[in-house]
Amino acid sequence: MTVSASTDFHADRIARLQQELRERGVDLALFGPSADLFYLTGFDAHLSERLNLLVVPAEGEPALVVPTLEAPLVGDARRLVSIHTWADHEDPAALAATVIGDVAGKQLAVGNQLWTAFLLRLQSKLDGGAWVEAAPIIRPLRMVKDETEIDALAEVSRLTDEAWEEFIEGPALSGLTEVQAMKRLADLTEKRGISSVWGICATGPNAASPHHHTGDRVIQQGDAVIFDWGGKLNGYNSDVTRTVHVGPPSEEFRKVYQIVRDANQATLDAVKPGVPLQELDRTARKLITDAGYGEAFLHRVGHGLGLEVHEEPYLVEGNDLPLEAGMTFSDEPGIYLEGKFGVRIEDTVVCTEEGGVRLNHATRDLVFMD
Amino acid sequence: MTVSASTDFHADRIARLQQELRERGVDLALFGPSADLFYLTGFDAHLSERLNLLVVPAEGEPALVVPTLEAPLVGDARRLVSIHTWADHEDPAALAATVIGDVAGKQLAVGNQLWTAFLLRLQSKLDGGAWVEAAPIIRPLRMVKDETEIDALAEVSRLTDEAWEEFIEGPALSGLTEVQAMKRLADLTEKRGISSVWGICATGPNAASPHHHTGDRVIQQGDAVIFDWGGKLNGYNSDVTRTVHVGPPSEEFRKVYQIVRDANQATLDAVKPGVPLQELDRTARKLITDAGYGEAFLHRVGHGLGLEVHEEPYLVEGNDLPLEAGMTFSDEPGIYLEGKFGVRIEDTVVCTEEGGVRLNHATRDLVFMD
Repeated sequence: MTVSASTDFHADRIARLQQELRERGVDLALFGPSADLFYLTGFDAHLSERLNLLVVPAEGEPALVVPTLEAPLVGDARRLVSIHTWADHEDPAALAATVIGDVAGKQLAVGNQLWTAFLLRLQSKLDGGAWVEAAPIIRPLRMVKDETEIDALAEVSRLTDEAWEEFIEGPALSGLTEVQAMKRLADLTEKRGISSVWGICATGPNAASPHHHTGDRVIQQGDAVIFDWGGKLNGYNSDVTRTVHVGPPSEEFRKVYQIVRDANQATLDAVKPGVPLQELDRTARKLITDAGYGEAFLHRVGHGLGLEVHEEPYLVEGNDLPLEAGMTFSDEPGIYLEGKFGVRIEDTVVCTEEGGVRLNHATRDLVFMD
Repeated sequence: MTVSASTDFHADRIARLQQELRERGVDLALFGPSADLFYLTGFDAHLSERLNLLVVPAEGEPALVVPTLEAPLVGDARRLVSIHTWADHEDPAALAATVIGDVAGKQLAVGNQLWTAFLLRLQSKLDGGAWVEAAPIIRPLRMVKDETEIDALAEVSRLTDEAWEEFIEGPALSGLTEVQAMKRLADLTEKRGISSVWGICATGPNAASPHHHTGDRVIQQGDAVIFDWGGKLNGYNSDVTRTVHVGPPSEEFRKVYQIVRDANQATLDAVKPGVPLQELDRTARKLITDAGYGEAFLHRVGHGLGLEVHEEPYLVEGNDLPLEAGMTFSDEPGIYLEGKFGVRIEDTVVCTEEGGVRLNHATRDLVFMD
């Protein structure tokens, strides 16, 4: 990788992307409103039926197609690109096709999250190009965080932990609905300046569904309660899960809690540059399977985390990409027993030359709440 | 349109979509997590890098490809579809391709908002199909609301108006930042049970940018302040804009306010079944242009509103689709004077056999706040 002497980190990122494009024989890359666009330009475009499109050629100046009414939002990013605006009564796909130019025999990479409707409209106007995913091209850039990015992740994680520590010292959970309990934790998180706060609160048997929709079930004595939540600060995300118990737990719950906690620790201990990402999933899965709960660990052990809550790299069987220092990801084993309860413990981890370092420090001891 | 005798409105909607597919010679339609999917099945799927895909053939039972860990969320929608789950270490595009089957010579329609990455992966596994947008096919269903849907829109609009009436009776705006002012209004909206509340607060010269990012500018005497906000209740959205003035306004502001208010009224008055949608935009634009501010009306006069904040039909030059009773949309002319101020007034309107009816009743009189 060549790092230019520029102090403009967005210009550097675009230059690195262009180098990746050239090395892979791809002629240009297209990105709609997305973390990719924000990463490359700092432009936080509005995702909607109005086309915003960044066109990055392998060489030369990038172009940005943007709705007239959103042009003021481009801000400082206009130093990096030529701007092409379209009014509501005009056809943005036609404008984009003109900006892109002739594509016969060319390779065009498209950002993962561009809406299909835009791709189909572009494909109908641009003949003879080959369309590929941009993810493998931008992945080497976004996946490995620099120091500023890791500091931002550490700060949002620290404040999210603080919200948790205040939450578990707070009033009783029993009698609250899932929505009410989640709101209390979300408010404590927002109070610390974190925005775009989201969360799952899954209680009792609902906690056996990893992506449960937080609802109106009332928390009662004997419930295990999973909180999986996070938010954004300076563009970077937190994502933490803790499982508490309301009233005295069963022996089985205690046992399962300890297994999940051990799997979380074993995954962290396995982090080292060079280790294939799937090894982390295998580590957690082996421990949980040996303990007799393999079938109940319903998901991969983790996902990358940064500008997006879920991003590359994924810690999943089949991903043999090696760990690199600077990768940041979740470590979140879980056990889900249908009709009974679920347990998940999740931290954000950064891979360093010396191994895995947690960015979350909220207690992993079993917490009891009233 | 044939309406079946079924009392299952989701089954009816799927049957109507299948009829549309057959009439258009399209063989099947694909939808990812989206309002389309929710409209057809009631399944509020999680939008992420994990593929959820509804496959609706022109005849026969639809299929749903869903991540194992999200299968519990399918809920009652499982009566409508066959379920095909995939675990994190498996390839969902391969599973989807198997479910879809041979596509040689077939027309496949894809929901607008499916991510491009999923389309490219499906295209690489399915040879010989022609891919088209699903929007024109599902549009005739979603665009015209039934009574239950209109009631839901009326209720969320009513509560959003109530929040506004409380807000303008509340404490002074001056000295608050845009973020703080917006939070006060959002809290009043959430207090009424509305969720997913979003909002734009644009103050002083920032109000000249229609999609301004709410920021840290402090509100001061002499500012025009635009609030454009809404939220969701029972799946349906509100979307209201009001412009207030802090302290005494200039003559120009008073004049512009009245023009925008007149344009909002003229647009409403032009609503009638059979009128082409672009006529509504022309009506507002002519009034504003005649008053000398045509160049400052930077956007179309409105957009459809329902399960999504922006959806079909769009009230824009070039859209000659005729209005139908049951269509619901925003009526939101605006004038934006760079470096000075902006004014926008927005209501949700339903087209009835007798003409346009507003669902918002928050005052459109010019409101002064401290």
